[in-house]
Formats: sequence, structure tokens, C-alpha cells
Amino acid sequence: MDMSTIGQVAVKLAMEKNDDKLKRLIEKASSLGYKVMTGQVGSMQMEKVIASIETGARRQGIISNVYREEHSLYHAIIEALEGICRGQLNLGNALRTVGLKFSVVSGPKNVEKKEKGNWLAVVLYGTIGAPIPGFEHEAIGMGINHI
Amino acid sequence: MDMSTIGQVAVKLAMEKNDDKLKRLIEKASSLGYKVMTGQVGSMQMEKVIASIETGARRQGIISNVYREEHSLYHAIIEALEGICRGQLNLGNALRTVGLKFSVVSGPKNVEKKEKGNWLAVVLYGTIGAPIPGFEHEAIGMGINHI
Amino acid sequence: MDMSTIGQVAVKLAMEKNDDKLKRLIEKASSLGYKVMTGQVGSMQMEKVIASIETGARRQGIISNVYREEHSLYHAIIEALEGICRGQLNLGNALRTVGLKFSVVSGPKNVEKKEKGNWLAVVLYGTIGAPIPGFEHEAIGMGINHI
Amino acid sequence: MDMSTIGQVAVKLAMEKNDDKLKRLIEKASSLGYKVMTGQVGSMQMEKVIASIETGARRQGIISNVYREEHSLYHAIIEALEGICRGQLNLGNALRTVGLKFSVVSGPKNVEKKEKGNWLAVVLYGTIGAPIPGFEHEAIGMGINHI
Amino acid sequence: MDMSTIGQVAVKLAMEKNDDKLKRLIEKASSLGYKVMTGQVGSMQMEKVIASIETGARRQGIISNVYREEHSLYHAIIEALEGICRGQLNLGNALRTVGLKFSVVSGPKNVEKKEKGNWLAVVLYGTIGAPIPGFEHEAIGMGINHI
Amino acid sequence: MDMSTIGQVAVKLAMEKNDDKLKRLIEKASSLGYKVMTGQVGSMQMEKVIASIETGARRQGIISNVYREEHSLYHAIIEALEGICRGQLNLGNALRTVGLKFSVVSGPKNVEKKEKGNWLAVVLYGTIGAPIPGFEHEAIGMGINHI
Repeated sequence: MDMSTIGQVAVKLAMEKNDDKLKRLIEKASSLGYKVMTGQVGSMQMEKVIASIETGARRQGIISNVYREEHSLYHAIIEALEGICRGQLNLGNALRTVGLKFSVVSGPKNVEKKEKGNWLAVVLYGTIGAPIPGFEHEAIGMGINHI
Repeated sequence: MDMSTIGQVAVKLAMEKNDDKLKRLIEKASSLGYKVMTGQVGSMQMEKVIASIETGARRQGIISNVYREEHSLYHAIIEALEGICRGQLNLGNALRTVGLKFSVVSGPKNVEKKEKGNWLAVVLYGTIGAPIPGFEHEAIGMGINHI
Repeated sequence: MDMSTIGQVAVKLAMEKNDDKLKRLIEKASSLGYKVMTGQVGSMQMEKVIASIETGARRQGIISNVYREEHSLYHAIIEALEGICRGQLNLGNALRTVGLKFSVVSGPKNVEKKEKGNWLAVVLYGTIGAPIPGFEHEAIGMGINHI
Repeated sequence: MDMSTIGQVAVKLAMEKNDDKLKRLIEKASSLGYKVMTGQVGSMQMEKVIASIETGARRQGIISNVYREEHSLYHAIIEALEGICRGQLNLGNALRTVGLKFSVVSGPKNVEKKEKGNWLAVVLYGTIGAPIPGFEHEAIGMGINHI
Repeated sequence: MDMSTIGQVAVKLAMEKNDDKLKRLIEKASSLGYKVMTGQVGSMQMEKVIASIETGARRQGIISNVYREEHSLYHAIIEALEGICRGQLNLGNALRTVGLKFSVVSGPKNVEKKEKGNWLAVVLYGTIGAPIPGFEHEAIGMGINHI
Repeated sequence: MDMSTIGQVAVKLAMEKNDDKLKRLIEKASSLGYKVMTGQVGSMQMEKVIASIETGARRQGIISNVYREEHSLYHAIIEALEGICRGQLNLGNALRTVGLKFSVVSGPKNVEKKEKGNWLAVVLYGTIGAPIPGFEHEAIGMGINHI
């Protein structure tokens, strides 16, 4: 699994549990021209998941504090949540909770095919399930937007 | 990114483009107790995507030809398509097309935490976009079900 | 299970397979002040299911041929289909097919609590599944609207 | 309306208001090889409806306390709620409330056609409407899953 | 942009910011046979938006306090919210807030083509966005129902 | 109803039937710094509606022929269709058809509050209904995206 596209970079970052390997992935991504950040969040409240990613991405400088960029990030997060929720965007209302690691990546859509303009990728990866330990399975979601 | 869960195995398989590396991943997954298969499909018709995965999984023996297992697979495919479609399950009707690689994996939910009973994971990874070459971006979807 | 509400009448009619019992149910429903009709339709095309119910209800005089009543029936059908499809309103596009019996009933919302004005109930009951004989399970849907 | 399928059993149980008749239905269902339970719940919070059914089914022994069975039940409940909510899975957020009777049934998909393996059916039946007495109409939902 | 249909009347009323012009629009709409009201509401809670429109329409006499009319209005509001929310009916759960002006109009579907029976139109117009001043854009939604 | 925002401009253009008035609206919008186009499309096939808007906007130079701009337009169209379809994005599959006028507008989000960067607005306005003349009512949808 290589890292020549923004989606591959974002998936690799969100799924890497080992801190040393994550550090090397971040360095490699940076050398390819990507701005990246990772984080984690667990909640039954979907708004907390969204806020956590938005705050992280802004603090790490992946997006700047203007509405156009926040709008792009917001829609990428919502699209990634569709993959996590698979059908209806709710967590606690549907008696389920998530434990997620996430990545936000900006840069070229494809490292090899040089195209003008930045894109934004959000990947969420982790578990979703009942609020009972172990009663959960994996889920992944990816949202990509122009920025 | 390790391979200790059914979802990680399925993501790795669906995203690996290199044939030799894919072969080694399949061997590793088998040695961990997983039954796996991979394939690819491109279409504007969602029913063709579904049929292609179902047929592949049946031929490769991931599921047997009984309704209970087909029912489990079908719902895992639909959940994975939610991640690809992000909101509304349609392709051609919404003037968009997909080019996807997919994996179907059955086995334990987690290699390390031994639990009884098999699970099924479907991962779709590839591009979605307008029916114009290059007018597309990446998408991923994962569906997990008990079998 | 009694027949004192429009929904109960519609469920009973849609689920009764025995012709003689169905005839008696229709007579009982009529005596309670309900106009009723039943029919059946099997298809992978959702538009055919809708058309079949609309045509039947119009021919049997449950609704008259004015837009207001057709509008009421249409939305009741769509709501009933939500129960059949459970999440996304598509059949063939999602590689699935239905075999349904249906009822359309107009009359009071509740026989006992006399309220002014008619209501309309549509119930669909039958099987949904893969286009493979036996690979299917039951589903039910009810739509109720003012008329 | 006979009781030869899991869905018919579940509908009959969820719609029977008379205690004596319900008792006889339960005995008949048991004699056909079904494990059944019934209950009722009223709420504007969808998570309470879900929790009430899950708790009831576990206490009555319809499912055992392992994740595979809870996963099967959860998805059957969500599918039944699609029939109740008809489009968007929310209650209080959409200013509406439900008063529901429910049944959970496990056993063969069809009593006559002997197939291996158990299935699970959840039926919800009752009223949905504004939080104003009488401003409500009937709704039904059924979810069926392999277990 | 003329005012010969119920939808045009409702859009004009919901989008007019100038009080004097709004007064003249209301007079013109009344002279064409429409009952109209306008209001405004801002919230992260969708149920408050719905309640605000329902209460306003009832107080202004657009609908009377019977369930049939409330049912018609409720569904028109929900349909208008689909245009505002564009995909998933939630506000605060998705970390977004609205500031809306709204109109509720009852009368003929079309002033020129005389048809029997009243219709109801709800139009919502305003902004939707993050809970940060200025981080928002416009949205509109219209729901039309027979009454 | 003034024209100080991109959404107001787009609504006015999509709802103006009179050719002379439309010409003046276009001139006014241009003088305010907006690039605009209008068109019309009627179909039971949603993909034809989307294609018609995309082709028109490209030919009229509202967007240029690069993926980033097409991606922005596509999502704005889909969001506008959510307002038209109100719940499920399908037309012919749900036995309904649309007759729509549409506008595509690019420029500042708000003429008065000068912000950097262009936005794109798509407004669809017209009728949706059964494929029977007169069995239809109005609908509107607006999609706004950064470009």
C-alpha cells in the first residue's frame, strides 16, 4: 500500500497505532507535500466528534480560520461520518458510541499526476457499537473536498 | 498499520495495488485464520457492483450458497457502499461512476482477543466521480457483519 | 388483534392469504365504515410497485381522480415503502426484489373515537431479497395520511 | 392471517391488545418453535426505545449476552424503526413522540419450509405524532436478521 | 417574479426583509385569497424550529387546532427542513445552527387555474452554518401539502 | 426582496418567468459582480437534470473545465436536488417527474460584506409530481459551495 494519493496518506495515518511508525509516516507525507495532523476522539455525541476534528485541524494549521476552509473541512468530516454511521448520521440518539482515530490531510489529490490546487482529506477509523465494552466493531470513513 | 483485526486485514487487501505484496498479504491473512478474496469492479450501476462482490465471494468460498450467509454479505456490502456514496445510495442516477477494488474477509473480529464465531468484512476502495476521465476522487467504505 | 383503527384494518387485509377469510375481513371493514381494496405486485422496479397501488386504488374508487387525493395516496405509499426498504428507497438498483401484497383503506382514523375527516392507510407486506428464489425475508410498511 | 412465518408471529404479538389472546398467541408461537417476548415503550428519545427492547430481549432470554446476538438484534431494531420513522431516524429532534408495543421473536424464518439456522424478528407497532394527546397516527416497523 | 402560485407567495414572504414591502406583499397575497403568516427563528435544536412554526401558524389562524391540519403542516415543515438541511435532518447534532425567516401560506395551489381545495406551503429561508459568527451560508426549503 | 447575497440573486433568476425582467435581473446581477446563467430542464431521470445544469454552467463559463470547479458545482447541484426531492434523491424510480428552471451563480457570498474568494449557488425551482398533467406542485432547492 503506497502513499501516492491524498486518500492513501490519510488512511495510513488514521490507522497507524504505533507512535514511531506514525512519526515516520508523517515525515514521509510532509516530504511528499502534504500538511497532515492526527488525533483521536471518543463520544456518543456526534457534535463532539466534529468539533474535535475541526479544532485539531485549525490548531495544527491544516486549515486557516476563514469560512471557506472551514466549510470545506466541515463537509469532508460529514462525508467521513457517513462511512462511520452507514445510513443515518446519529450516534447517541441511536444508542451507539464511537472510539475513533482521525487524520486530516491537505495537499495534491495525487502526488504523481500534478494538478493545480489543494484538496482536503479526512479519514476516521476506529470502532462503533453499543455502550458496552467489547460490543463494537470497526468502521472507517473518508471525506475528500476541494479547498 | 498492523493486521490484528478483520477490518485492518480488509483495508490492507483492498488498497494494495502491487500484485506481489498483495499475495504476501493474502498469505499472512490466511495464516492468521482469515478467509479472504479480492476483486475489482467499475460501473455506473450500483447493482453491478453488488453482484460482482457477491459472485466473487461465493466463487472464492468466503460464503457458502445459503441465504443466511448471503444476507450477511449483502448487508455488509450495502454498509460499505454507504461509505462510498456518502449519503444517498446511487451512482448512475446521480451521474457518477465508481472504479473500485474490494476485499471480502471472514474470520475472527480480532486475532488477539479470541471470541467465538465468525465475522465478515467488506472493504471497497477506489474512485468516485463524474463520467469524465480524471474528474474523480478517492472513497472508501467498510461493512462488518456477524455470519 | 381487533379492527378498531384504520391501521389494524389495513394490516389485517394485507396479511391475509386465505381468500374466504379476506372476503369476510373486507365485509367487516366495510361495515365499520371503511373503503378498502387489496392487491399484489412483484417487481425489482420501485416505480412499478407505486404505479400498481395507485392504479388499483383509483380503479376501486378508494381515491377519486383528483390531484389532492392522489397526492395523499402517493405520500402514504412512499412512507409504506420506507418500512419495506428500511433506509434507502431503491430495489433493483440495490439488487433486490419484492413480492408484496398490499391494502389501501380510507375512513376514520379510529372507529371508536369519532373524529371528522377521512384518513388513508397503505400497508405493504411480503418479502424482499436477492433475485434468487428463497433468498428473501419478510418486510412490512405502513403509510397513513389525511385525505 | 396465519402464523407460519417469523414475521407473522411477530406482527400478531405486537398488535394484540387483549391479554388473554396474547397469552394464547405466545403459547401457539412457542409450540411452533419460536422464542418470543413482548413489551411496550413510549418516549421522545429514540435511544430509550432501543434500550428498552434490547434489555427486554436479553432478560427474557431471546438473545444471550454476547455481541454477535446483540449486533443482530440492534440492526433488527434499527430496521423496524425505519418503518416507524419513515425517512429519518429521529423522534424528539423532529418534535415527535411514539407509544409502541413491540415483540422480539427468534426461530425459523418459515415453520413449513425447514431451513437450518435461527432468525430474529422485531416488530414495533403503535402511534407516532406530536407531543399533544390525540395528535398521532399508527405506524408499524419490522426488522429481520440472521442470528 | 409574480405571485400567481402558493409557492411564489411563500418564497416572496419568507425572503422579504423590508417591513413595508412585507406589509404590501401580505396585503397582495390576502387579496389573492391566501391566508399568510411570517416569523423568524434561530436555533441549534431542530425541534424548536418546528415548534416555532407550528405555534405561529396556529396562533395566526393559518391552521386550526385539529390533528388533520397539524399533520399537514408538520409534513410541510419537515419537507422544508430537507431543503435547509440537505441530506440529514439534524442541526446541533451535526454542529450547525440556523437563522431562519419563514412563511406559512394556505390557499389555492394556483390563483389562475382554479382548483377546488386548499393547499399549504411552508418556506424557510436564511442561513445555516457553524456556531461561529459569519461561518454560514444561505439555504432555502419549501414544503407543500394538501390540507 | 433585494439582491445583496448570492442566494437571493440565484432565487430571483430561477423564479423569473418574464424574459424582459429576467434580462434586467441578469444585468443587475452582473453589475454587482456575479457571473450568472439560467436554463430549464424537465425529466424523470435525475442524471439528465444534473447533466443539463453542468453542461449549461460550463458552456456559459460559470465554471471552467477543471475538476475542482466541477466538483464544487456537482455538490451544489446535489444539495439543491435535496430541496426538490425532500428526502430521497430519486425521480423516475419513485414515479415522479420534474419541470425545473434553474440558475447557477458565482461571485461573493454577500455583496456588502466583502470577503475574499468566490462562492457558487445553484437554485432549482419548478414543479414535481406524478407523470400526469396537473398532478404536481412546486418545489425549490438551493445548493451553495465554495469554489
